This record gives sequence, structure tokens and C-alpha cells, in this order.
Amino acid sequence: MIFQEGDYALIVLDGRKYLKRLVQGFSLSVKDKVIKLEDILGRKPGEMINQFYVLKPTLEDIILLGFERKTQIVYPKDSFYIAFKLGLSEDKKLLEFGVGSGASTAVFSRLCGEVFAYEVREDFYKLAKKNWERFNLCSNVNLQNIDFLQADVEENYFDAVFVDVKDPLPFLEKVWKVIKPGAVFTSLLPTTNQVSSLLRALEGPFCHVEVMEILHRHYKVNPDRLRPEDNMVAHTGYLVFARKRI
Amino acid sequence: MIFQEGDYALIVLDGRKYLKRLVQGFSLSVKDKVIKLEDILGRKPGEMINQFYVLKPTLEDIILLGFERKTQIVYPKDSFYIAFKLGLSEDKKLLEFGVGSGASTAVFSRLCGEVFAYEVREDFYKLAKKNWERFNLCSNVNLQNIDFLQADVEENYFDAVFVDVKDPLPFLEKVWKVIKPGAVFTSLLPTTNQVSSLLRALEGPFCHVEVMEILHRHYKVNPDRLRPEDNMVAHTGYLVFARKRI
Amino acid sequence: MIFQEGDYALIVLDGRKYLKRLVQGFSLSVKDKVIKLEDILGRKPGEMINQFYVLKPTLEDIILLGFERKTQIVYPKDSFYIAFKLGLSEDKKLLEFGVGSGASTAVFSRLCGEVFAYEVREDFYKLAKKNWERFNLCSNVNLQNIDFLQADVEENYFDAVFVDVKDPLPFLEKVWKVIKPGAVFTSLLPTTNQVSSLLRALEGPFCHVEVMEILHRHYKVNPDRLRPEDNMVAHTGYLVFARKRI
Amino acid sequence: MIFQEGDYALIVLDGRKYLKRLVQGFSLSVKDKVIKLEDILGRKPGEMINQFYVLKPTLEDIILLGFERKTQIVYPKDSFYIAFKLGLSEDKKLLEFGVGSGASTAVFSRLCGEVFAYEVREDFYKLAKKNWERFNLCSNVNLQNIDFLQADVEENYFDAVFVDVKDPLPFLEKVWKVIKPGAVFTSLLPTTNQVSSLLRALEGPFCHVEVMEILHRHYKVNPDRLRPEDNMVAHTGYLVFARKRI
Repeated sequence: MIFQEGDYALIVLDGRKYLKRLVQGFSLSVKDKVIKLEDILGRKPGEMINQFYVLKPTLEDIILLGFERKTQIVYPKDSFYIAFKLGLSEDKKLLEFGVGSGASTAVFSRLCGEVFAYEVREDFYKLAKKNWERFNLCSNVNLQNIDFLQADVEENYFDAVFVDVKDPLPFLEKVWKVIKPGAVFTSLLPTTNQVSSLLRALEGPFCHVEVMEILHRHYKVNPDRLRPEDNMVAHTGYLVFARKRI
Repeated sequence: MIFQEGDYALIVLDGRKYLKRLVQGFSLSVKDKVIKLEDILGRKPGEMINQFYVLKPTLEDIILLGFERKTQIVYPKDSFYIAFKLGLSEDKKLLEFGVGSGASTAVFSRLCGEVFAYEVREDFYKLAKKNWERFNLCSNVNLQNIDFLQADVEENYFDAVFVDVKDPLPFLEKVWKVIKPGAVFTSLLPTTNQVSSLLRALEGPFCHVEVMEILHRHYKVNPDRLRPEDNMVAHTGYLVFARKRI
Repeated sequence: MIFQEGDYALIVLDGRKYLKRLVQGFSLSVKDKVIKLEDILGRKPGEMINQFYVLKPTLEDIILLGFERKTQIVYPKDSFYIAFKLGLSEDKKLLEFGVGSGASTAVFSRLCGEVFAYEVREDFYKLAKKNWERFNLCSNVNLQNIDFLQADVEENYFDAVFVDVKDPLPFLEKVWKVIKPGAVFTSLLPTTNQVSSLLRALEGPFCHVEVMEILHRHYKVNPDRLRPEDNMVAHTGYLVFARKRI
Repeated sequence: MIFQEGDYALIVLDGRKYLKRLVQGFSLSVKDKVIKLEDILGRKPGEMINQFYVLKPTLEDIILLGFERKTQIVYPKDSFYIAFKLGLSEDKKLLEFGVGSGASTAVFSRLCGEVFAYEVREDFYKLAKKNWERFNLCSNVNLQNIDFLQADVEENYFDAVFVDVKDPLPFLEKVWKVIKPGAVFTSLLPTTNQVSSLLRALEGPFCHVEVMEILHRHYKVNPDRLRPEDNMVAHTGYLVFARKRI
């Protein structure tokens, strides 16, 4: 594989990362280093060009560096774990609402046969569509620009659900109806108050509830001075998992 | 879906989880509660039977509760993240060696077109095979019972590699050869000394190196007394990621 | 200094620690190793005797290993930090109530001129007294076996206060009265719900509020295989600090 | 107590903290708020003046906001814990070298009878002196501007030692000599490589070795939206404790 016009490239200099599309006129300057379209075209990933490394972006790079966002996204550290906890596979149907900029859907759709997604805000709906189209993602996602409460969905239809809205409570009754018995329910909530409220609402209609948070701690990569970075992300949200009880 | 003879069931009582196969004579006693084969057959997931909840296991349940192990496994908290960091998708070929009981392979194979796996110890080779067969996993995995250094593999062939051996250094030159330019290299190492050694060896042939650790913190699920569990897993291993430089 | 009859000794074998009083008939067996009174008398701290190390205990050893407890104690990881945050010094007067087994008082009294402590339960009152007397601690502490609400105390009298009761709210008005303007208020609460309630009550009469938790992560001490312990304490409580507003 | 000219005040606005001396011409502007000397003189701590809270600083405030520093200081989160782990009390003598800007000494001296401190760099020596004088701290500290290796000290003299230099190894033999049998040795090191080296050197002459790190996680203080801060300090250093073996 060689880099061609129109490709996206992950360009790295001294640990700083840039995700750029290789289009006419492309040029990136960092400090006193410059890299241009013609430097990259025809070169292979992993080559060092003018002190920059040029690589193919992974899904994480695309989400963190390439996705446009108007709101807090679900971070890969959380969505990568959630994707598997949802029990997704080729033959499963996932329900998701509160799609936002589409970052979590882009992850879940990789593991899942079909995703039915709902986003009530038109600006978010368009943004998610744009992000996915730009990076050729989510061909198995059916996204609708409506409130999930207005969605016409069968009962006992979905194998799993991911809810990413400020207050999941008004949606819980309908969610319960449309997912299969024993299906995995998941939500991500920033505050302890929201977690307490959701836990109260899950009692009864849901069982096997779990709450956790995921922390990633990065290290400086000097082999002779190995030590954690000075700072880290201390919080994104609390992950809540449960199963539909019948 | 209803439970039938031969199915695996995740059986939960007061937060304790058991993964059991529903075979003739099955019976589970916890404290003074009992559940038997005939109680479950024909019932749906999510039903409460004699105070137990009976559910379909997810991949995480299978790995943590169903896989037989002779050595430390790669925990889902790590492998779920690694799977996505490896940049896997339907059209990608993954190299993995040091398969152990097959826990990480079972995760990676979900996201990947084809996995080529090597395990030098015969007992581990058989164990991984047994674990996968029992749960109908890893049909896209080609596992060989040889040292990766003996493996006959093409150059520039793999899109990504996961190395889970005590000392990755003797394998690094061959790994570099058989993976594609820019391919993702990943390893998981328990000690800081091993991380330092690997970082030294990666300098030069690899670029864009990252080191991190992942911590999961679980909460008690009482909505009126929300608080973290008293204890947590403090360490499994350090994750090292890099890209093949050319 | 040499060990004499009646002394307390911290006895360490392979990382396991025992706090023992050197009295007639003393003998400690761990695995197949034995150490007796006559082995230790006349020896110096830091000597290895029958594979055991014998040391003088620090305050942390005394609290963790020597204090009898009927309830959760305030752990040194928290109390050592709180002691300094309270702004204690020789000329300061601390108010403390909810003394429990007396672990936190033993720490605070080290930094403070005088401590006025209240414990409503008689069994805890006697236990704290016993723990302090046994280890010759807290000579500057005035402990009373009454509810703080019954205590006869001057207004604007204390420089700082530490409240360790299940529900601090009913005490807050009196606490506010008896501490000096700008004095440091501190409490330790296990659940997020309690923290939310206390934060609500502090709004108005108190200012400069801080909430934090302290995590200690221990490492295995093998220099060639340096790595964190497998497990850690994930939670003791949330620390809440504030200042009296006037 | 009322604020007088020459006092130090901790001035807080919306969670931002400033440590200022109340001298002629003092004035602080934050956003569109202003507070001046004459606003504060004669007022009590805990008063809100022009939206600012004015308080007496604690030792932590003084160290974090008032101490001038030319190098990384020992943070209160670490030094508060170390102070107690050193087993300090009125009748104890502490040895400290690598004093830097004097932050850790200011903490230890609070708990200790006498501190003997050494700082080889003249600029640091002067800085520590200046920081202590400015805030009236460390009257029980004997600080010398010499390399500890040149210091004329008795054998078996100190009850505890804190070493804060890049490489403690060249000092270890002398340290061992001058501290008492069983005395507490402590060091703070930023990298895992340094910890491994120190652990190797401690084997033999020292016993009961412990390594740990301390993490503080702060919360936003909104009672209805309780959640951790987005970011936290992920690393300052590894704490190493040991006891002198004889």
C-alpha cells in the first residue's frame, strides 16, 4: 500500500499527532518542520519524511483526531470496552440513541451486524452522517433524525442497547419493551447523581447491574527514565450495564 | 430464544456469577438456593428462577468464567482495548503468538478477517483449541503448535501483531519482517523492566511508541449508597503499542 | 536503644508484619519459623533474628496493627493528609467527634496543641481510651463520652474540626458556631450520596469547599521485576474540606 | 483574629486561589473583580469581600502558592504522608538532604524535634532559607550549604532520613552509618529505573522495603452534579521506604 491523493494520513512528529487528508495544496508545518502533499504521495506507511512519520490512521485516530464534534464524544477508552460488553457480533442488532457526533456508533458498528440509531437533534444527525461519510464508516448503521420515543420499533427486537442521553429515565420503559429478554443495556453518565437515579430506575425491570469507570494512564516512552505522564484524564463517565429482566 | 439442553447459561445470584452448561444432571447450589436443569429448560434469558437470574453469557463472561487456564490470561479490560488499537477489520490479517489459553485470540478474532496464531507449548496449544471449541469461537483462527521463530511466513504479510511472551526481544526482528510497513505492533508486559527493555529494542525499527495501563474501578450498585468497591485489580500489565518503521 | 520487656515490637517476615508486646511467654510462629521473648530482649531494632526482622513500630504500624477496632477506622493514608490540611500546630485547638477506635485522633494529636474529642457510644469511648493508653498516645486529648450536641463549648473557640459520623448534617449548625472564622472543617464520607448532601449543607455557611479521594498503590519490591501489587484498596472514603464563612 | 498589614492572606474566587502579602499598595484583580489592602485590613478570615473569600493560609497553601521554586518540589500529597511514615516526633532527629526549595523540610519540621538538612547548591540553599523566613517556618531546622558527603555527622545519630537527590546510591553507605539501627529511610524518585537501582542497593544493608505511589483525585463540588475533575496529576514520584538493618 502506498499513499495516494485523497487518502487520510496520520502524521506524527515527536509524539504529536495530526490526521490529515492528502489533497491538492496540503502542507503541514510544526515548529520548523514542513511536510507537503508531494512528499507523501507514493510513499509507504511507516516512512519517515522530513522528520515526520506518516502512517495509516486506526479507528481511534479517526475518532480522536478526525471526527468533528459539537459535544463531548464517547472516548475510545470507554467505547472499545462497551462494544464487547454489549455482546455484539455479526448476527446481532444494536439499538443506540443519543448518537451525538457518531463516535460510539463508529466503534459499535465494527462488531455488530446492524445498528439502528436515533438522534433527535438535526445538527448532530448531520454531523454524525458527515463524520461517517468522510471516513467511509457505518455502512451497516440505520440512523434516523427522530426522538427515540417517536421511533416505530418492534418489541423484543434488539439484542443490546446503548443509551447516551442526559437523562435515560424517560426512555427506559420503551427501551425495555424493544430489547430482547436478557439483552444488554448500557449507558454512560458523567455524574454520580445520574448513576444513582438510573440505578433506582433499573431496579425491577433490569437485573445483573454493574457500574464501573475506566482509567487510562499513559507513560513517557524513555526506556531509561520510564515513568507515567505528569497528567491524565481523570474522568469521562461512569459506565452502567444491566440485563433486561422478564 | 429459549434455553435448551447443551446451551451455556450465565447464572447470577446476588452479584455472584456462574457459567454453566445445561446438561443432564446439572444442578447448582449457592447458600441455601438450588437451581436445576429442568428449572431452566424452556425458559427465556432474563427470567428469575429460584432467586437466580439466568442469562446468555457474553464473550467477557465466557473468557472470565468459562475458559480453562493454566497461566495468567489477557484480561478483557486489556484485550477489548487492544483489539481496536490493532486496527483490525474484516480485510485484515493478524499475527499473534504466545496464545496461552486463547483468551486474547478469542477477542481479536471477532474484529479480524483472519488470525494466524502460534503457541510453542503443546499443553497451551491444546488448551486454547479446547476453550475455543467448547464455546464455538475462533473459526477464523489458524493456530499452529510451533515456535513463531520456526513459522514459515511471508514478508510484509500481516496488518498487525500481538506478542504475548515473556521476552519479546528475540522475536522482534522476524516480527518486523513479516508485518506490513506501518503495521501495528502490540505487546503486554507485567514489569517495568520488561517495558524498558522492549522500548530500547523498538527504537529504530519501530516508531510512534505508546505505553499505557488500564484500570477498571467497579462500584457497589446501591443507588442510595453509591461508592466504589473496597478493592480493585491494581495491575495486570503494561500495554506497549508501536508501528513498523521502514 | 535495645528491646526490653514491655516494649512493642514490629516483627517482619517476608513482608508480613506483626505488632507484638514483649511480655513473659511471648512467642510468634510463622510457617516453620519461631521467635520468642528471649530471642529479642537486649537486641537492637533492625536485627534479623531467626529470619525475622525486629523493629520499633511507627504510628502507622500501631494504628494498622495494634489498635483494636469495632468499626472502620480512618486509615493513615487519609488521616496523615487530613492532619496537615486541618492546619494544625502547637498553638491550635482541634475539635473532633465520632472518635470511634481513636485512630484519627492519634494522628491529629501529634500535630496539634490540644484536641477536644467527643464520642457518644460508650463502647467506642472505652476502646479509644484503651488504644491510646496501651501505646502511650494522646496525652493532649480531652475525650468525653457524650454526644457533641450535648457538649458545653464556647463559640468561636476551635481552629479546626474533624467530623467522622454517618450524618454530619444535624451537627453542622453547632459546629459552625464553635469554630473560629475561617477555620478548617473536614469530614470523611464513604458514599457519593453523603457527599452530595454535605455539599448542599455547606453552601452558605461555609466556603472554599474541596472534595477528593486518596489512592495508594503499592509495588512489589523486586528490582528486576518491578510492578504494582495485583490488588489495591480502591476506596475508603471521600474527603471533604471547607472553611467557616462569616 | 483580624487581618493586619504584613499578614499573608489566601484569597479565593470561584475556586481560584491566590496567596498574597497584605502590604501597602496591595491590589488583586481577577476578571472584573478587584480587592485591595484597605478592603481586607481589620476584617476576619472567612469574610466575603467583593466576591472574594479571604482566609488564613495553611501550610499546604503556603507551599503550593507561596514558595518560590527553581525545581520540582515535593508535593504536599507526598510529603504529608512521608512525614508520618518517617516516625517523627518531638524527641526525634531527622536527616534530610537535597533540600531544594525547602518544601518537604517545612512539612517534616512540624512533626520533628530537630532537622539537620544539607543542600549542596548555593542557589537552592538561599532559596530554602528565603522561603522559610518569609513564612516564619523551620526554626528547628539546621540547614547547611554543603554536600552531605562532606557533612561532619556522628554515627547512629539520626532517627530517620529523607533523601531527595537524583541518585541516592553514592550517599547510601554514609546514610546507613549515621542513622540509628532500625531507623526509617525514605526517598522519592520519579522513574521506575531509579526505583529498581535503589531497591538493588537497599538489599542487604536495609530491610522492610516498601514502594508506593500516591494519587489524589479531586471532585467538582456541585452537589447535584458530583463527579471527578476532568484531569488529575498522574505522577509525581515513587515513594521508597526502608529500615536500617544491622
